[in-house]
Amino acid sequence: MGLLARIPRRVEVVEVGPRDGLQNEAQIVSTADKARFISLLAKTGFRRIEATSFVRPGAVPQLADAAEVMAVLPPRPDVEYTALVPNVRGMERALAAGLREVAVFTGATDSFTRHNVNMTVAESIDAFRSVLALAREHGVRVRGYVSVCFGCPYEGPVTPAAVLDVSQRLLDLGVDELSLGDTIGVATPNQVPAVVGPIADRAGLERMALHFHDTRGTALANVLAGLQLGVSTFDSSSGGLGGCPYAPGAAGNLATEDLLYLLHGMGIETGVDLQRVAAASRFIGGVLGRTLGSKVLQVLEAEVRASA
Amino acid sequence: MGLLARIPRRVEVVEVGPRDGLQNEAQIVSTADKARFISLLAKTGFRRIEATSFVRPGAVPQLADAAEVMAVLPPRPDVEYTALVPNVRGMERALAAGLREVAVFTGATDSFTRHNVNMTVAESIDAFRSVLALAREHGVRVRGYVSVCFGCPYEGPVTPAAVLDVSQRLLDLGVDELSLGDTIGVATPNQVPAVVGPIADRAGLERMALHFHDTRGTALANVLAGLQLGVSTFDSSSGGLGGCPYAPGAAGNLATEDLLYLLHGMGIETGVDLQRVAAASRFIGGVLGRTLGSKVLQVLEAEVRASA
Repeated sequence: MGLLARIPRRVEVVEVGPRDGLQNEAQIVSTADKARFISLLAKTGFRRIEATSFVRPGAVPQLADAAEVMAVLPPRPDVEYTALVPNVRGMERALAAGLREVAVFTGATDSFTRHNVNMTVAESIDAFRSVLALAREHGVRVRGYVSVCFGCPYEGPVTPAAVLDVSQRLLDLGVDELSLGDTIGVATPNQVPAVVGPIADRAGLERMALHFHDTRGTALANVLAGLQLGVSTFDSSSGGLGGCPYAPGAAGNLATEDLLYLLHGMGIETGVDLQRVAAASRFIGGVLGRTLGSKVLQVLEAEVRASA
Repeated sequence: MGLLARIPRRVEVVEVGPRDGLQNEAQIVSTADKARFISLLAKTGFRRIEATSFVRPGAVPQLADAAEVMAVLPPRPDVEYTALVPNVRGMERALAAGLREVAVFTGATDSFTRHNVNMTVAESIDAFRSVLALAREHGVRVRGYVSVCFGCPYEGPVTPAAVLDVSQRLLDLGVDELSLGDTIGVATPNQVPAVVGPIADRAGLERMALHFHDTRGTALANVLAGLQLGVSTFDSSSGGLGGCPYAPGAAGNLATEDLLYLLHGMGIETGVDLQRVAAASRFIGGVLGRTLGSKVLQVLEAEVRASA
């Protein structure tokens, strides 16, 4: 079928639950429980897990123990633990923790970036120069996140040209990979070729990741549109951990189990074991005292109840 | 973009919440509340609403009041109320209620059809002959549902050839439209061209409807695959009303609000007002004492809370 022609045979799923998921959970999780959660995820087949964020410890209480979490994680040769670094100080802490990959974080609109890091997009990218220099010096890989690529909670619609502009600046700065985010979960599939196409032409498809939120239920339709363009890296969060800060009570990150179900059903290899991811989700859901939002996880729970 | 080339400009959304949704709700809803729910839906822009089922009153307690519901609904020239009819007796009751469109219901596997109506697929189709004859005699339009087209709770995988076979029999019998259902919500987008393509070649795209369940979160990705084939009729349920009888606690019908969000976001006209559908969902959710599962509805609820 023509519609399936460009779909990759293998996809990398980047697990972001421990950072992007937990960051949006109000209840503080202990260092030991975070380490246990990440260790469970590390046994599922992910090659990369975004484990924490080296932000100023006072800024995001949930992630104040970044160094402690990294210190207690048993190293695994097959898994790269990555972390967000907002600035040089965070980069130095990430290096001290032994990380081989970090991520920097900006947005497609000034309003969003100001609300997040109190800088314009251009200022935030300037601030990354010394982070990137330090990364290069130590041979550390850098992912560049671009938030609100498909819509902004402050500015509304975002043009593909704005996303291309910030993406190009990050590429010029030397990031190894771009992850384009639908931070508030408003994207529909028609936007995907419009936003991704021009950037993939410059960066190359192998350096592109897509990061969808499922706030309005469209994440997997957007993944399909990305696959049809040939994108082969997608971010997701175990169980759908983390809500939407812009619509409290609504869903946030695309759930890893739902993404894996779609990919595996389409015959696309990921190397990740869905049942083991569900076990990690059950663990962290137990810590938080609730069943996480993943629909596939809910089916698995229903099956467990039915066979009990 | 090539991926969007065949996507229709206008889509008909067929609302099935009052029948397919309520049928799977344990709590019995009063005739007055059903009529109020359907009346709210009738003001949203739907051209067709599946309002009830003329099954034997003892068989499905939730739908035992089919004639009473139809009797109290104010007729609207712009809305066709439709109903399921299992046999000639049901067809006679539907005619007495003044319906101009009915639906017959079979499946792609014998196991499923036996569990549902205690007949093989072939026997169920034989039983429809006299229903279709009566419909033709009275100029009543007939939709033919085919369940478990993408997977069966009893037989597992279902071949596209099996779906084609039962679809062809329904077409031979004279149904005006086919609605292919993913009754247990297992479909992934690669199945859509495989199942729909051969049938659309015979029936014509304008006689095809797709009926996805969102049990594993893939419904909108499957809708996208259907749109890309040129399918322009999709079934959904207000708020996502009705769970999955095969995985109690998991999601069932695709939520109308989520479908409308996707379609409208893609610039596809439906003529249906999403906010008014949400109002109908809030009403029936209030009757059932809970917020329905639609993700878009949950965002709207969060926005209401935030502005309160």
